[in-house]
Amino acid sequence: MNEQVAPPLTEGIITALVTPLDRAGEVDTPALDALVDFQVERGVHGLFVLGTSGEGLLLSTTQRGKLVEHVLARVAGKLPVAVHCGAADTTTAASLVSVAASAGARTVAAIPPLFFNYTETGIYEHYRQLSDAAPELDHYLYDNPDRVGYSLGLDVTRRLIAEVPCIRGIKDTGDSLGRITTYFALTDKIQVFTGNNVIILGALVMGAAGAVSTMANVVPDLFTAIYAAYGKGELGEARDLQLTAARLQSTLVGLPYVAAAKYLLTLRGLPGGHTRSPLPELSSEQQSTLEQRVHRDPALARWLTPVS
Amino acid sequence: MNEQVAPPLTEGIITALVTPLDRAGEVDTPALDALVDFQVERGVHGLFVLGTSGEGLLLSTTQRGKLVEHVLARVAGKLPVAVHCGAADTTTAASLVSVAASAGARTVAAIPPLFFNYTETGIYEHYRQLSDAAPELDHYLYDNPDRVGYSLGLDVTRRLIAEVPCIRGIKDTGDSLGRITTYFALTDKIQVFTGNNVIILGALVMGAAGAVSTMANVVPDLFTAIYAAYGKGELGEARDLQLTAARLQSTLVGLPYVAAAKYLLTLRGLPGGHTRSPLPELSSEQQSTLEQRVHRDPALARWLTPVS
Amino acid sequence: MNEQVAPPLTEGIITALVTPLDRAGEVDTPALDALVDFQVERGVHGLFVLGTSGEGLLLSTTQRGKLVEHVLARVAGKLPVAVHCGAADTTTAASLVSVAASAGARTVAAIPPLFFNYTETGIYEHYRQLSDAAPELDHYLYDNPDRVGYSLGLDVTRRLIAEVPCIRGIKDTGDSLGRITTYFALTDKIQVFTGNNVIILGALVMGAAGAVSTMANVVPDLFTAIYAAYGKGELGEARDLQLTAARLQSTLVGLPYVAAAKYLLTLRGLPGGHTRSPLPELSSEQQSTLEQRVHRDPALARWLTPVS
Amino acid sequence: MNEQVAPPLTEGIITALVTPLDRAGEVDTPALDALVDFQVERGVHGLFVLGTSGEGLLLSTTQRGKLVEHVLARVAGKLPVAVHCGAADTTTAASLVSVAASAGARTVAAIPPLFFNYTETGIYEHYRQLSDAAPELDHYLYDNPDRVGYSLGLDVTRRLIAEVPCIRGIKDTGDSLGRITTYFALTDKIQVFTGNNVIILGALVMGAAGAVSTMANVVPDLFTAIYAAYGKGELGEARDLQLTAARLQSTLVGLPYVAAAKYLLTLRGLPGGHTRSPLPELSSEQQSTLEQRVHRDPALARWLTPVS
Repeated sequence: MNEQVAPPLTEGIITALVTPLDRAGEVDTPALDALVDFQVERGVHGLFVLGTSGEGLLLSTTQRGKLVEHVLARVAGKLPVAVHCGAADTTTAASLVSVAASAGARTVAAIPPLFFNYTETGIYEHYRQLSDAAPELDHYLYDNPDRVGYSLGLDVTRRLIAEVPCIRGIKDTGDSLGRITTYFALTDKIQVFTGNNVIILGALVMGAAGAVSTMANVVPDLFTAIYAAYGKGELGEARDLQLTAARLQSTLVGLPYVAAAKYLLTLRGLPGGHTRSPLPELSSEQQSTLEQRVHRDPALARWLTPVS
Repeated sequence: MNEQVAPPLTEGIITALVTPLDRAGEVDTPALDALVDFQVERGVHGLFVLGTSGEGLLLSTTQRGKLVEHVLARVAGKLPVAVHCGAADTTTAASLVSVAASAGARTVAAIPPLFFNYTETGIYEHYRQLSDAAPELDHYLYDNPDRVGYSLGLDVTRRLIAEVPCIRGIKDTGDSLGRITTYFALTDKIQVFTGNNVIILGALVMGAAGAVSTMANVVPDLFTAIYAAYGKGELGEARDLQLTAARLQSTLVGLPYVAAAKYLLTLRGLPGGHTRSPLPELSSEQQSTLEQRVHRDPALARWLTPVS
Repeated sequence: MNEQVAPPLTEGIITALVTPLDRAGEVDTPALDALVDFQVERGVHGLFVLGTSGEGLLLSTTQRGKLVEHVLARVAGKLPVAVHCGAADTTTAASLVSVAASAGARTVAAIPPLFFNYTETGIYEHYRQLSDAAPELDHYLYDNPDRVGYSLGLDVTRRLIAEVPCIRGIKDTGDSLGRITTYFALTDKIQVFTGNNVIILGALVMGAAGAVSTMANVVPDLFTAIYAAYGKGELGEARDLQLTAARLQSTLVGLPYVAAAKYLLTLRGLPGGHTRSPLPELSSEQQSTLEQRVHRDPALARWLTPVS
Repeated sequence: MNEQVAPPLTEGIITALVTPLDRAGEVDTPALDALVDFQVERGVHGLFVLGTSGEGLLLSTTQRGKLVEHVLARVAGKLPVAVHCGAADTTTAASLVSVAASAGARTVAAIPPLFFNYTETGIYEHYRQLSDAAPELDHYLYDNPDRVGYSLGLDVTRRLIAEVPCIRGIKDTGDSLGRITTYFALTDKIQVFTGNNVIILGALVMGAAGAVSTMANVVPDLFTAIYAAYGKGELGEARDLQLTAARLQSTLVGLPYVAAAKYLLTLRGLPGGHTRSPLPELSSEQQSTLEQRVHRDPALARWLTPVS
């Protein structure tokens, strides 16, 4: 149990922390510490651990519990930490919520259940059970139709927000600003984080609290700068920074996403580590492609200098 | 040939004009005049005729040519008018471009070809031929993956903008702010109009020139108010208006789109007319549903009062 | 008007005739004659003209009418000829049905309308109007969800078969034997042709009347042999031939379909001709790939010898 | 460890055993025994446990291990039993293979990994690791693109069959007879079971070893009759029985699949039990709908009489 009081998730740039792994797929704790420290130093507003970029679904319950404890201890209350507890089935996900709560987490999030065709009632029930497993925590839905195969849908989201007090909001991954806008059009008091690196500014303008960003692992400064420029009302500057982030995102086209993010960390001298099987690593050819793409764009290269 | 000089399409709220039709599916000219006059009076910044909402693909080349001539005469140079010339095949589409040019149009747009699997070269060639049919006009691409079955793709879009001087930009329908942002991240000098009623503000913030909007037929004031608020830097107000537009859009969920838009016009005392077979009309039950939805939301009802 | 009595479409292997075109995209009549003659000589049981493989949707109404007249004259009543009259909209498709009827056709088929979201009533109405345009002809539905973007659906199909006497059946393209089986499970008296080269034997076993086959342009003997073996109860032989056809089909993976079929014709010394823009031709690299694929498989090479 | 020698999976109708659960979602062992006994008595050729219909992905590793032990003991070597060991990630799936091996299983199968975008190498590696966990067992791939979100693809399937000796074949769920045919066209020595109730006869004709069938829980006699008729060369009878099976399948349209299968068992006086949350149960309205559908079709009612 962590003694530090973990602050609540409120707003800003939340790094979707990648999990540095060794060749055997085990968590590389010194590398993890270095990455966490880097994020804290660079001033991101929170961490989101064990999500898609964190390879949470490929790690065991035990591994996930230990990592949560470790990260919370390292962060030591300096930042909010949201723990992704999603799993294919409700029982495993609910048990991960309990594990996160025992480890001292204050904030959890979860994808909907995988594989089967569920009804709206079933999806509602999934989140109800996750909430019941630790109603003292702040809970977030996590919509990711590209990976999950279906979207939570507005009706389920609206009902959960209205009826389950500990459900605070949603992480919406995808570039549909329409869906995000419709949350605000139809739902009261929902807190929305976009999980997409390219539409952050648009989401902020429509009322989003912030972004959960994988690329913030690599260039936290760029993403906090978008957020800061928007906060100061400097729309033009925010737009230019968002376009830079979009160009960075474009360098990943056709490459395995998690491995590419980890390789960009390595290029900056940060410990990205390996991916866990069956997720692919970058081939050496893909590594060259990625290096060429980021280095031929001076506006990107500026953000990607090696960390001393 | 229209003697008025049609102004170029620059920016703002462009109404995706519905085509008022009689029971037999023929253009109802007095109704069309009334609708055009209403749009001009209410200060929209342009008209986009014979697109999806205009049922262009269900009308014959002759009907389309006549409508263009008629609208251009009625508008009499007061507004830019873009003419959708898309068709399933290149030959028909190119011939529609020539017809539009002969009718006095200055601006044309077209969906990519339908039905077959095309390569990027084939799609490029399609637009090249449309441009060649009237290179003196301003040409716009029209990406609508939901209806067409595929997206133009960034590479084709970028090449066409760079290599064909008369291609000015793109109408991008869909709620992917990611795609719109990426145009600006990767392409120079592209003019982008979103075709989605819900993401207008987000698109403007990212650099869009404006929106081609179906709902602007019904509530032109609401949409021009979004644009004006953004222009004055009143982001909060623009956001509130955009959320109202999103709630209006939500009233159409589950209803046939063109028919619903036409019925909303009728509710305001404007001449929406019928749809052309095989597009459905609203059933009387659907009409009631739509009426109830718009009337139970006071924020909407305010914008939907009958036009005197 | 053709004086020969065109026989009705009953069963067997119906070649989905490609349309030999010259470089300008115009019908190459001598080549067309040669291809028609080849099909008749090789004993296929019918022709299906101006469908997907026939590039019907890329040709004008005038071109389509002339081609129908020409093919009917050349076939001279020796085979049934089905004319695809599908178009994006109902009016054009109904007019193509009238044109086909005037040209002497006895059998027509059509895809459902394109581009818009239609209701079941709209789709029903589309086919009702096509039937009304020439109720003395035999009409066939044509389901092709991959190209059209939606499937006709069982309910619409069942209602049309039950309620519109001149609608005889359906050409079902795609490899869903489930859908074909369900027609027979739920519908009386429907005549089904699979449009897929790989599931012909399975479809025949479940009750299909035959197949509309693009590859039959190239190797009519192979496809009529599948049909004949099935007819004689030689299931093992039919299966071996079907597997050969599946291997032939596999040589087209990743290549533009119509162009590849035409190139295979060329390899046999038959006049495939060009494709019509914006459909791609094979690049010379793709031509080599295709040649290598067919030549390295002796079981295929045997069927693909040059026609003397 | 089970002392009976479990026979290898060879061919025929393999029941995709549903898992009878109590209200709390725990395995109802007496009900499970009754269902297993019913299947053995009625002469199915094997059992496939803990697959999609068996709700395997919603049960814990412990529950899955116990169920395997229990079923193997109850079957006592009278039938082959295949154990689905699929999970979202490789580690869990490999551990389930070990558990199944320890429990005495001879045959295992697994879906590919879930949620992430994997490369072909990653998917290959997934199955490689599952094979390494118990190379003395017979392993089967399980392709289910509708539920998994992607297909294994022909290349991976072909390589795994060729290179990993203990991988015998594939369970292919979906109604694509094209994919099944292509396995036989391109791959040597693959054993294929269709997982689709509607295309069994077509799959058999093309070379499939049999079917893994959910509906065989309810009407094992109907499905073994299809297989027997095909075996005797009675194609007409096999087709009629397959059409009956297709009509039975059609009664489930729009209903939650596993719950509907369990309810049909209940209608026959067999212990279907509950589904595990978040999978839905049938509402009482859905129960009536299903009853009406099966009872209004005399050809179905005959197969669905209560088991004495």
